Amino acid sequence: MSDDHPRYLAKELDANDPLAHLRDRFFVADDDLIYLDGNSLGRLPAATPAHLDRVIRHGWGDRLVRSWTSWIDWSRRIGDRLAATALGAREGEVAVSDSTSVNLYKLASAALDAAPAGRRTVLVDAEDFPTDRYVLQGLTDARGMTLRAMPSDLDHGLQPGELRAALDGDIALVLLSAVNYRSGALLDMATVNTAAREAGTVVLWDLSHAVGAIPVDLDGTGTDLAVGCTYKYLNGGPGAPAFLYVRRELQHRLRQPIQGWFGQRDQFRMAADYDPAPDVDRFLVGTPPILALAALDPALDVLDEAGVDRVREKGQRLGQLIIELTDAWLTPHGFRVASPRDPRRRGSHVSLHHPEALRISRALATQGRVVGDFRTPDRLRLGPAPLYTRFVDVWDAMDRLRDIAERRAWEQVADEPCRVT
Amino acid sequence: MSDDHPRYLAKELDANDPLAHLRDRFFVADDDLIYLDGNSLGRLPAATPAHLDRVIRHGWGDRLVRSWTSWIDWSRRIGDRLAATALGAREGEVAVSDSTSVNLYKLASAALDAAPAGRRTVLVDAEDFPTDRYVLQGLTDARGMTLRAMPSDLDHGLQPGELRAALDGDIALVLLSAVNYRSGALLDMATVNTAAREAGTVVLWDLSHAVGAIPVDLDGTGTDLAVGCTYKYLNGGPGAPAFLYVRRELQHRLRQPIQGWFGQRDQFRMAADYDPAPDVDRFLVGTPPILALAALDPALDVLDEAGVDRVREKGQRLGQLIIELTDAWLTPHGFRVASPRDPRRRGSHVSLHHPEALRISRALATQGRVVGDFRTPDRLRLGPAPLYTRFVDVWDAMDRLRDIAERRAWEQVADEPCRVT
Repeated sequence: MSDDHPRYLAKELDANDPLAHLRDRFFVADDDLIYLDGNSLGRLPAATPAHLDRVIRHGWGDRLVRSWTSWIDWSRRIGDRLAATALGAREGEVAVSDSTSVNLYKLASAALDAAPAGRRTVLVDAEDFPTDRYVLQGLTDARGMTLRAMPSDLDHGLQPGELRAALDGDIALVLLSAVNYRSGALLDMATVNTAAREAGTVVLWDLSHAVGAIPVDLDGTGTDLAVGCTYKYLNGGPGAPAFLYVRRELQHRLRQPIQGWFGQRDQFRMAADYDPAPDVDRFLVGTPPILALAALDPALDVLDEAGVDRVREKGQRLGQLIIELTDAWLTPHGFRVASPRDPRRRGSHVSLHHPEALRISRALATQGRVVGDFRTPDRLRLGPAPLYTRFVDVWDAMDRLRDIAERRAWEQVADEPCRVT
Repeated sequence: MSDDHPRYLAKELDANDPLAHLRDRFFVADDDLIYLDGNSLGRLPAATPAHLDRVIRHGWGDRLVRSWTSWIDWSRRIGDRLAATALGAREGEVAVSDSTSVNLYKLASAALDAAPAGRRTVLVDAEDFPTDRYVLQGLTDARGMTLRAMPSDLDHGLQPGELRAALDGDIALVLLSAVNYRSGALLDMATVNTAAREAGTVVLWDLSHAVGAIPVDLDGTGTDLAVGCTYKYLNGGPGAPAFLYVRRELQHRLRQPIQGWFGQRDQFRMAADYDPAPDVDRFLVGTPPILALAALDPALDVLDEAGVDRVREKGQRLGQLIIELTDAWLTPHGFRVASPRDPRRRGSHVSLHHPEALRISRALATQGRVVGDFRTPDRLRLGPAPLYTRFVDVWDAMDRLRDIAERRAWEQVADEPCRVT
């Protein structure tokens, strides 16, 4: 216990938290386990099992194939819900289906095909999530184009000035994450979109670590293209289908390469030739996984009730508490905050640097019963999720981490790489 | 009732059916509804709701992100189950993830990239399922190649002789369905694979209407590439993830275009550059939908218990009963069998031709309480599923269809296109 940062202050923050009651909307079987990895896999909403059971027994079991008259629109319907709740997009601009990687591939490929002739370079952040770079690497290799990975600060991400300087006349597409998966560093989408537009190019945003954590305003920031996952702060479940966003005015000009029947105009006419749907449906491909889609409804209900602005405010305060307690308790043990300290420059998670971060994350989980995660090369990532993480959870987690640090408890832990998403 | 084809004979067939007890393994709430559309969406296995509830509450709810140490292999694990139960493939040759259309895209693209230089044509069946043609159209257009759609008989499919004649030195890839989605016409995979190999090319098989209905022997037939869906005769649920198969010896030579982190060697090292896994994992892309994957386990349990050979035998007899009763009862009303009559040349479903097939399928569903489906241009498709369809179900369905035919009950029915998958 520390006199400067007593636990009761965290309890007071919880007592005054307008979102505190929402923790009960989640399934929490083990109150002693502190879960700070909602940015890998969000918790199970309490309403989800019964909702899925209904879709399974009634929709599938009773109604059988006849349910397709309803299911057929779910990619769009849930996309519209997500647009209104979390993305600041208009109706008909968002669809949910496939994985984030597949959606990235579709939109990046479409954007490259539509890029001005002669532009041969795709700009990415060297420190972005691997799959984002891999997908773009495949696309640029296949086209004989160049993938330029901008060096980026591991703690603070890309600086807008550096990014602007890199936007030369050869750039066909820029791929960026709104919130960096490792540090949580946040890019100002409006500023970047404007700079890209002035440079005659377009940005494809990966919103995986932003959606449900910070207010995203795709319309207001002039965003053209975005993708993101729904199993982190949206609590859609493991491998829940991802979303894609294409600004309405662009849709008719873009064609994605995977020409499946769910992207076909008037799909059930079964016409001989592919003719892409006139709207966002053209970015769909095959039959979407309905059970996985269904889990998004109860998840979005909770977010709707909270409101993203309140989620954001609490998220910032949870993050600041992690930083405060790191400074007070962990700096003497070789930890360093590896995320922007200014909450306006950071998403919902905070990373701590320590040379033994991998083994510390293991010890923290097994001995401390705190689930965070390790990120290469030497980061312990802590992702409080404002919908269900209490201030006292953060306090307790940091207290347990301090205990591990004081005992150097990681020295007995193996260091094979971990396998979390 | 007909004296020549009395109902009690169908009851006798059920009494002697070694698979009859398996109907209880499925959720059947409404015994009066006759479901002959298991080839669009298979029924809900009775064990699935509880199994999914366990995965949701325990796997997701309790264990949270830590479940990924198990889930990470599910695409492969369930692929191996499927390989052994239904595909005659070896371990490490099948993976389950993404939709059939996305899998088609990946494997077709990989095959075209590996095709001998100078071969510029992809051969498809003009009467194959639309999404198959659409996907290949996209791939050939992007490469400046030609898509050649072979005319095919609506009732009997492609003839092996015609196919062989079309296999000239310009063919880079052949895409075929083992069982035609409309007529059920079956192609002999071994014969076609051999002909393709002799012509220096390769066949990519769509097994969507074959898997779980007929014994597929990918190894024994010398198949190189295949994809297929799991929500028809496999009963995996609406939009269940699809499978892909790549013959082991080919895997290292093929690269698919969607380079996601689930296809990466040593995925969690998060290396800077994409380096495809040395095995079937390289055909994976993003995070698979775990809840949808989970539904395949109880579904495959039932198929395991039945054995595909017994499923096939019963499927042939159910089909023969449809044909017999069509001949006896429906021919005078303008119906004609639009599928191969020889059960060895047909999958599990049977199509009937009638100029009013669309409206008849509607009347049959609403007035007759028989769910089959309409397929363009004028086919009523009836898909008994041997795991849960009884002979008496077929008899009753045909009896109700006869009643509709006698009353010309479809004349009051609207004819907007139907929307089933």
